[in-house]
Amino acid sequence: MTVHLVGGGPGDPDLLTIKAARLLAEADVVVHDALVDPAVLALVSPAAELIDVGKRPGRPVPQELITELLVQLGRRHRCVVRLKGGDPYVFGRGGEEALGLQAAGVEVEVVPGITSAVAAPALAGVPVTHRGLAASVTVVTGHRRVGDEEATDWEALARVGGTVVVLMGVAERAAIAARLMAGGRPPDTPVAVVERAGTPAQRVLRGRLDELAFLEISPPATIVIGPVAALDLAGAAAATAYSASPTG
Amino acid sequence: MTVHLVGGGPGDPDLLTIKAARLLAEADVVVHDALVDPAVLALVSPAAELIDVGKRPGRPVPQELITELLVQLGRRHRCVVRLKGGDPYVFGRGGEEALGLQAAGVEVEVVPGITSAVAAPALAGVPVTHRGLAASVTVVTGHRRVGDEEATDWEALARVGGTVVVLMGVAERAAIAARLMAGGRPPDTPVAVVERAGTPAQRVLRGRLDELAFLEISPPATIVIGPVAALDLAGAAAATAYSASPTG
Repeated sequence: MTVHLVGGGPGDPDLLTIKAARLLAEADVVVHDALVDPAVLALVSPAAELIDVGKRPGRPVPQELITELLVQLGRRHRCVVRLKGGDPYVFGRGGEEALGLQAAGVEVEVVPGITSAVAAPALAGVPVTHRGLAASVTVVTGHRRVGDEEATDWEALARVGGTVVVLMGVAERAAIAARLMAGGRPPDTPVAVVERAGTPAQRVLRGRLDELAFLEISPPATIVIGPVAALDLAGAAAATAYSASPTG
Repeated sequence: MTVHLVGGGPGDPDLLTIKAARLLAEADVVVHDALVDPAVLALVSPAAELIDVGKRPGRPVPQELITELLVQLGRRHRCVVRLKGGDPYVFGRGGEEALGLQAAGVEVEVVPGITSAVAAPALAGVPVTHRGLAASVTVVTGHRRVGDEEATDWEALARVGGTVVVLMGVAERAAIAARLMAGGRPPDTPVAVVERAGTPAQRVLRGRLDELAFLEISPPATIVIGPVAALDLAGAAAATAYSASPTG
């Protein structure tokens, strides 16, 4: 009778929270999207029903249908998990689902997860803040539809300085780089791009802001812009190797 | 022979990662600061050495001494955990410790944790992004010493819009609110303040930006500024009750 909005973290099942792992094992139904790693889904009980509502490019499932599905499932089952990559409230549209469930009188609980905005850079050896290099970090979506009417003022963001982390920004990266430079960020601002962070297939590309448009990136990827992107803290990459028994 | 920089999350041991819980149980030595919750420290093996280097106001332990301590411990022990509240790379100065350990030739690994910047609002029912309300979230420290020479341009930040999350900002909140309003954020911008997020003592205060200076806040607290701060998603508060056996 409760729908749990659960953050699945950056991919590595070892970076799930204890609570998320327990709920996955206990759930009657798990509703997940395409960005959730198969190694995380492996923690779901074989008796549970798995529903993929992944919004793949070209054939999106409308958000209203997903929320309505959760309402119906929440009325029928004891324990429903709505599993999202990263954190449910960082561009995960979890707030909309929570509002819809509340409006329908279905109990809902949020279980925060590790957002890729912080973990993807970390696993690549890049801290999003660092004394003397960045006193703030702004997480922003590059996907025009996600922010919608509330468009980002990239020129103002350039003047804030600090670190900019762009999620879902691969397609728009040329425009983003141009607007940040127009706002005053130097063309030689370091950039790091992390593909498939926290999985064995993780790949890190580095360059300058004026090169961002020309880097060959395969989404999903996290883009980090700012002086911290030049840091390369060794050892962090070790976290990308999954342990043999991820449930530990 | 490895120092693990481990994120301890927002407080609730259920919101530790699986990897963090395992490392705490396996560590020979755990070096922690004052913001780590006692319920998290309870997961440390009784055989392990616990060292508190908490930087309390008035008697700070210099960062250089902490890094040097980690170097010495890393050379003597098989498994050293440097445990930090939240995430090590979100104003945790983990980057400085990683650099110092690397320079000394000590192996270092980062284990991301859930940052309070995202979890504290979530546990209080406030999503840091929400379609139509916020297309970005900026996490910034209000503590003048932490950012140092890289000072925040609050007026530019005001023009970015979106959500602003201030960590360690209780003492400076009057100046922060004044500068954000000078930069154009309306005086009636919603504000939510979350004290001791994710613990049974969690408390949420709400108001407007022009009231922030006058709210009676006990640190540590997370300050959320922006339209999302008016949201009050029910059910999230349930996550603040610890389970009886947190290691689950």
